[in-house]
Amino acid sequence: MNAPHRYHHGALRTALLEAAEKLLNEGGVGGLTLRAIAREAGVSHGAPAHHFADLSALLSELAASGYLRLAEALRAAGGGPSRNPVARAYLAFARANPALFSLMFRDDRLRPDYPALREARAAAGDALASTLDLPQAGATLAAVGEMAAAWSMVHGFAVLAIDGRLAPFLTRAPQGADIDDLFDAALARLDVGLRRKE
Amino acid sequence: MNAPHRYHHGALRTALLEAAEKLLNEGGVGGLTLRAIAREAGVSHGAPAHHFADLSALLSELAASGYLRLAEALRAAGGGPSRNPVARAYLAFARANPALFSLMFRDDRLRPDYPALREARAAAGDALASTLDLPQAGATLAAVGEMAAAWSMVHGFAVLAIDGRLAPFLTRAPQGADIDDLFDAALARLDVGLRRKE
Repeated sequence: MNAPHRYHHGALRTALLEAAEKLLNEGGVGGLTLRAIAREAGVSHGAPAHHFADLSALLSELAASGYLRLAEALRAAGGGPSRNPVARAYLAFARANPALFSLMFRDDRLRPDYPALREARAAAGDALASTLDLPQAGATLAAVGEMAAAWSMVHGFAVLAIDGRLAPFLTRAPQGADIDDLFDAALARLDVGLRRKE
Repeated sequence: MNAPHRYHHGALRTALLEAAEKLLNEGGVGGLTLRAIAREAGVSHGAPAHHFADLSALLSELAASGYLRLAEALRAAGGGPSRNPVARAYLAFARANPALFSLMFRDDRLRPDYPALREARAAAGDALASTLDLPQAGATLAAVGEMAAAWSMVHGFAVLAIDGRLAPFLTRAPQGADIDDLFDAALARLDVGLRRKE
């Protein structure tokens, strides 16, 4: 246990979120409690109640921060003639933050109607739509299907990679190939889908 | 609460797994307990201990049964000249059993070393490898990447579909298009990857 701290109002909120993310990274969402988060932040176990109604509210805030960081990473990678850097940024975010990334898609542990989460999800959706040139309303089914295939492939690769499910592919690949090589080879399959129209 | 039942040894085991799957379908894995499963099966709350060391063992058995059913569905769909029926069977299984499918990929709630689960996962992996003609060891990176892209796309589409995350694509698609149309359009993007070499 850390020594007790006194925080200003906003700083306590930040400290609780940082403590929650640290515990999430260490042990997953399974055993996470408000009490353990308070202990990790070095504050009284009643402190989280000043900021979060319950654990799902705190996790929703954390997931929201994940979506905002993902949106930022996608935008930073976007804008070039190829969409592949955006896809690589998506995978890199998931691999750098596996527990947070999993939480972001675990609606059973979140409050999907939590305002900050709704806004952050919309921001990430906008970042994905703009960096991938998502078709507008009224597009052909082929165009929409192409983008659905691209996002599904990138998302599916990310969740399978962080769960260690791609080992059977790596063992069949030429010696020395790693997960990034496999992803680039997979992206090449979708090259047209991921290349921005000139 | 159901009326108390008396089961033969094997029948109790089956009844507990069926009760667990029913509760899983109704409320997800979050609130699931051995006690609630025993109550649903109409047996004493000590009964599960005769068959399962703890909840994660029971869930591992349930996930194993999911992998065996998925393997069967893939094999039933395989063997033809196109791989698309296998992909559709994968999506159909996920959509028909969303809570079970999610559980199968939730290692934090399972015992990955549980023997029945290991065997069932291997069986599903074999079914996927044989129905998709997974490249053998020593294949080119391109060939392995193609298969990784195909499975990632199908798996990613399935998890996004059961989480309701594909709505932005459907709203952009021509009116009347449903999730199956979107999937077929996505598969068409990967048509070469999913078509068996003649």
